[in-house]
Amino acid sequence: MADTLFTLEATIAARRGGDPATSYVARLLMRGRPKIAQKLGEEAVETVIAAMRGDKAEVIGEAADLLFHLAVLLAEMEIPLADVLAELDRREGTSGIAEKAARAVT
Amino acid sequence: MADTLFTLEATIAARRGGDPATSYVARLLMRGRPKIAQKLGEEAVETVIAAMRGDKAEVIGEAADLLFHLAVLLAEMEIPLADVLAELDRREGTSGIAEKAARAVT
Amino acid sequence: MADTLFTLEATIAARRGGDPATSYVARLLMRGRPKIAQKLGEEAVETVIAAMRGDKAEVIGEAADLLFHLAVLLAEMEIPLADVLAELDRREGTSGIAEKAARAVT
Amino acid sequence: MADTLFTLEATIAARRGGDPATSYVARLLMRGRPKIAQKLGEEAVETVIAAMRGDKAEVIGEAADLLFHLAVLLAEMEIPLADVLAELDRREGTSGIAEKAARAVT
Repeated sequence: MADTLFTLEATIAARRGGDPATSYVARLLMRGRPKIAQKLGEEAVETVIAAMRGDKAEVIGEAADLLFHLAVLLAEMEIPLADVLAELDRREGTSGIAEKAARAVT
Repeated sequence: MADTLFTLEATIAARRGGDPATSYVARLLMRGRPKIAQKLGEEAVETVIAAMRGDKAEVIGEAADLLFHLAVLLAEMEIPLADVLAELDRREGTSGIAEKAARAVT
Repeated sequence: MADTLFTLEATIAARRGGDPATSYVARLLMRGRPKIAQKLGEEAVETVIAAMRGDKAEVIGEAADLLFHLAVLLAEMEIPLADVLAELDRREGTSGIAEKAARAVT
Repeated sequence: MADTLFTLEATIAARRGGDPATSYVARLLMRGRPKIAQKLGEEAVETVIAAMRGDKAEVIGEAADLLFHLAVLLAEMEIPLADVLAELDRREGTSGIAEKAARAVT
């Protein structure tokens, strides 16, 4: 399960250039970046609403959709998922208390 | 790096109930679900705009922020990250070509 | 044209409780607040993307959709459009240079 | 009050090129389209959350902010507000029952 996101990344890469008639990923990539970015934004809105409704099962489903479309967007931009996780690691590692304290909740 | 998200989840859990003056996570959790959901939505908007600008470095930073705030939202709702990844696994595993074909890009 | 929004507000009120089979507004109101809020969020995402693409015609269409769904949300919450415009008036009137200067672009 | 949006449009036009140190509008326009689009998206997210919380006063404030930043975005793109309202008029006028029936709530 720890490798879910990397498996997803590999699956998306394998479907790139596939038949849009049978692959949702191929179809999304064919539609292009604005459509993929739109889907990402929509899934975030749905996650926000599910959270405000307090519906855990719905949040799980929408969060999965959000991660899925984020992975497709990264693939379309040829950004390795590892680069995003490395950035997260870097922030956790170097931040410590000081950086967190400096970060205001606006 | 494969464990980045689980490490993040553990870090957030450890900071829950910490001093809001020194911990951004403690401060966010104290502000409550509407504020956390708002931050998630805002980071998604910033990811969309960075993608449309074609700025890879900015997308990496915003995607990291998006994942971070998603993890905080899941923590606030007491939803294990593993549940979201299991849902992603389930879709990848059972979907195959048929489900993907049935999924329209609207 | 200056009365477009008030005409829209009246049209929405007239369709409330109408036949969901023939009225989009009646259908939306029947679906409830989470669905209407979701549509508002989605139209905002589409407006953002159209703006980033620099497509004026698309921005006009998406902005119209955004205003339409905002009007439906206000109707569902029984908030008169006049209250929102009065708030806008109030800010413009009382703000002047000082308040604007105090308002940071974050 | 019916002219609130046109007054806002004129105010924004008058402040364009003003001193960013004293005018929020001048500052926003100087920051450019991505920042304005981001603010529009953020205000939409805040409107969605206020609606889900059921807080009418907050929805009024956020909806005013949303309209304000939409007007700034239109100004930045040199799109007359009248064009957006004309599009809304057109849809209301020509649509009738048929077009509404064809419009699915997805």
